[in-house]
Amino acid sequence: MDEERLLPAEARRRIRCNEWTRPTAGMASGYTQANMAILKKELAFEFLLFCQRNPKPCPVLDVTEPGLPIPRLVAPTADVRTDLPKYRIYRHGELTDEVHDILEYWEDDMVAFLIGCSFTFEYPLMNNGISIRHIDEHCNVPMYKTNIQTVKAGRFEGPMVVSMRPIPHEDVIRAVQVTSRFPSVHGAPVHIGDPAAIGIVDITKPDFGDSVSIRPNEVPVFWACGVTPQAIAMQVKPDLMITHAPGHMLITDKRDEDYAVL
Amino acid sequence: MDEERLLPAEARRRIRCNEWTRPTAGMASGYTQANMAILKKELAFEFLLFCQRNPKPCPVLDVTEPGLPIPRLVAPTADVRTDLPKYRIYRHGELTDEVHDILEYWEDDMVAFLIGCSFTFEYPLMNNGISIRHIDEHCNVPMYKTNIQTVKAGRFEGPMVVSMRPIPHEDVIRAVQVTSRFPSVHGAPVHIGDPAAIGIVDITKPDFGDSVSIRPNEVPVFWACGVTPQAIAMQVKPDLMITHAPGHMLITDKRDEDYAVL
Repeated sequence: MDEERLLPAEARRRIRCNEWTRPTAGMASGYTQANMAILKKELAFEFLLFCQRNPKPCPVLDVTEPGLPIPRLVAPTADVRTDLPKYRIYRHGELTDEVHDILEYWEDDMVAFLIGCSFTFEYPLMNNGISIRHIDEHCNVPMYKTNIQTVKAGRFEGPMVVSMRPIPHEDVIRAVQVTSRFPSVHGAPVHIGDPAAIGIVDITKPDFGDSVSIRPNEVPVFWACGVTPQAIAMQVKPDLMITHAPGHMLITDKRDEDYAVL
Repeated sequence: MDEERLLPAEARRRIRCNEWTRPTAGMASGYTQANMAILKKELAFEFLLFCQRNPKPCPVLDVTEPGLPIPRLVAPTADVRTDLPKYRIYRHGELTDEVHDILEYWEDDMVAFLIGCSFTFEYPLMNNGISIRHIDEHCNVPMYKTNIQTVKAGRFEGPMVVSMRPIPHEDVIRAVQVTSRFPSVHGAPVHIGDPAAIGIVDITKPDFGDSVSIRPNEVPVFWACGVTPQAIAMQVKPDLMITHAPGHMLITDKRDEDYAVL
């Protein structure tokens, strides 16, 4: 695909001009994509604190200065108001609109949080010969609410959401090693093997995303999921909160390997 | 030494009762010690953002809720107002007092930042047979201002401070590997070998701490230093800022190994 070989700036230009309005998976391959949550400054400190206390589900890649829509650390030429293909507008915790830019919603006390996403460790897994089931089955990764509690910060609290990938027994240790290299994009798994042990009743019924097949020689492996901070921010029912639409991410200038500690 | 075998809660009790007012190096061995900087809430978001953008020099281990002196994440039974042996009070960037508790200075909009310290990776280095020169020479680690710029956040900006440890040539690679395991307490070195390359004019004249000997078979290895965030906060000249006195740290309930990603 042509979009796979795009550089991030060109990918963002196409998105900004509404030449591209679909999910970003596979675009600008090798460059890190990020989840986004935008809150008013009044909630920003508590939310940043929540992320700092829960680095596995909430790996912060960048936070914009209040009112400034530029993610200077990860994409200094980007504008978070226009450079994602689709946004969701939530008022008091309710989805009220889905839009292609947020110029009319932006206010001068808004802060954008860019949060690491599991795309960053899925490529290294595939490079290590570990296939990713939801990619093979052309669907969204299955995600589950768990009984693992996050660490509270101010008004933000609640259970961790995890994503699941079925891994063949003989690859489980390698999967732990590979993802441990990336602590700033969820890192090592949070659980291997027993869904019930983390409060998942029926593995075939994910709370978000799609169900994928698990073969007899495979183990379900669970990673902390970037949906967690959005789900938890939503519970606070902020007057106004803006997020990316699922799968419609910010493409940053950072390479996935920039986030590897080893 | 008796104090080496103390559990953290007992070590803190002795400190709180002023039975112990000296530096904490070597106390409660195996448990993580933390640098501290206390700011008013008005500066807290910017400072947390600064730390988030500069994780190598500013690895945040915990941030207290505004007004609440309890570091719930790292030592839920501790009180940051009494449980460090010595504090420094800075007004408008000037050191005005050194005290054994800060009960009379504490205000209900204060936020304490607990920041990782290199003690946490010095034990693993020693366990790997790499001796630490400033410990052998019974002095403070040498620290230098560099020409490496930190990433600005709001009013906070300035050069990175590094600490230096001379390492024998044959151990340098192992030293990189060992400290890479601990990204949340400074992690891998920022420079190996050439002080001039990072703006250090005279290696025998550190800006903070003490000079240590470098032997002919040794290379100076530089790590990002936790003095950086304090030095930078000071430049903002906050009305009131409280820090630990050098070497007089908070002893947390966390084990050093809790901060290893592998």
